Amino acid sequence: MKKYKILVTNDDGINAPGIRFLIDIAKEFGEVNVMAPDKGQSATSHSITFADPLRIKTIEETDSYKEYSCNGTPVDCIKLAENVKLTELPDLVVSGINHGSNASINVIYSGTMAAVIEACIDEIPAIGFSYDSYSSQLDFEPARPFMKTIIKGILENGMPKDVCLNVNIPNTKELKGIKVCRQAKASWKEGFDTRTDPRGGDYHWLTGHFEVEDNSEGTDLHAIENGYLSVVPVQVDLTAHKAINDLKFLETEL
Amino acid sequence: MKKYKILVTNDDGINAPGIRFLIDIAKEFGEVNVMAPDKGQSATSHSITFADPLRIKTIEETDSYKEYSCNGTPVDCIKLAENVKLTELPDLVVSGINHGSNASINVIYSGTMAAVIEACIDEIPAIGFSYDSYSSQLDFEPARPFMKTIIKGILENGMPKDVCLNVNIPNTKELKGIKVCRQAKASWKEGFDTRTDPRGGDYHWLTGHFEVEDNSEGTDLHAIENGYLSVVPVQVDLTAHKAINDLKFLETEL
Repeated sequence: MKKYKILVTNDDGINAPGIRFLIDIAKEFGEVNVMAPDKGQSATSHSITFADPLRIKTIEETDSYKEYSCNGTPVDCIKLAENVKLTELPDLVVSGINHGSNASINVIYSGTMAAVIEACIDEIPAIGFSYDSYSSQLDFEPARPFMKTIIKGILENGMPKDVCLNVNIPNTKELKGIKVCRQAKASWKEGFDTRTDPRGGDYHWLTGHFEVEDNSEGTDLHAIENGYLSVVPVQVDLTAHKAINDLKFLETEL
Repeated sequence: MKKYKILVTNDDGINAPGIRFLIDIAKEFGEVNVMAPDKGQSATSHSITFADPLRIKTIEETDSYKEYSCNGTPVDCIKLAENVKLTELPDLVVSGINHGSNASINVIYSGTMAAVIEACIDEIPAIGFSYDSYSSQLDFEPARPFMKTIIKGILENGMPKDVCLNVNIPNTKELKGIKVCRQAKASWKEGFDTRTDPRGGDYHWLTGHFEVEDNSEGTDLHAIENGYLSVVPVQVDLTAHKAINDLKFLETEL
């Protein structure tokens, strides 16, 4: 089998069980570079660090495997790896395995998927993997053959242009297969838990629940609920092309 | 004229000249609430704060105008305003005026636009305004009539479903009009300025230049370069629908 160059990152930090499992899979495909945050960076979305200096810590450096952590966000990790550490661009970026689902609207908040989107902007094939559970006692092993199918499929067939993949893995040992899906319509209905500190000042903790509007067949939530890994192709062009005509009434010419 | 309820935020912080100008325009349309970060939050994208408590500072509270700052991100501002301070949802969210362009791929990094996208997820019409200059000596006044045209147009005609607007204002006094556009294709080509601290440790400053691949007619960059305000409808469904069929080869059924 051809040996590929694979860059691995995540948003849960270099020591998270999810990235250790993903590194293990990536090694089956060739030469692996890891650049991951030195601490948890969940929900940092597409944040970048420009007002503070970034530092890289070398964890391991051999001919076939290099592992670094840095004090930046997942998107910083991609930029640092590409520009400071890698001698050539990778064949594939994989991010995760995120602890918690990034299906549906979560793709927008996710640091794991932001790293993937950043690689996509740079025209590198990229896949984010997330697992639908926050438990620290996860067994990722049942997902291995399916994750390998997806990685192998993209390495051998290529990625559609300007697209990256958001893969979510259901929390079950009885995985049924893989479905290519659209993003379900859902949102977080927030609340805040407001408390008063010992000096009389109010502070607010973000809380909330996930409210699903459309998880019909063909959506990522439907796939996951039925035991399938969901694969959503994600684009970096956010234009609502169909709405351009509807908004022409705003056009003005002096 | 009907009085509307408008929520104002930004990512440059409560004291930035851009938000002061936007508040001034918003007041022409009715009752204004402001919830903005207490410091600059540029390039925080869609980050949210859940591991730290959020605090709100009251700056002004009258019947027709309320102004608050908080220690969160622009997306936190939307959540806090909706859930802690507002008695009912606003008719419109406006964000900005951002100091610096959010045209093209910048929409993905922008905190200003993240606040707009967050409001859109909550099905509130929302518009982000950005000005194509980082100068602190900006004259926003020439943009006022065009910004009012856009705000009035959306308040009176409504926003297409699941869409919000990314408006960019060229840095010129000779504005020619408004164009509804698609997102231009461009990306940041990063470099890092690597230095060594007095103790011998390397650190890296993010640098880079903006590289344009497609700024043909119909794109936001083309509009701005020709003196027009660009209006790009932005969607929260990131699915690359056309790519779903191309990726069916990944599907597996046990």
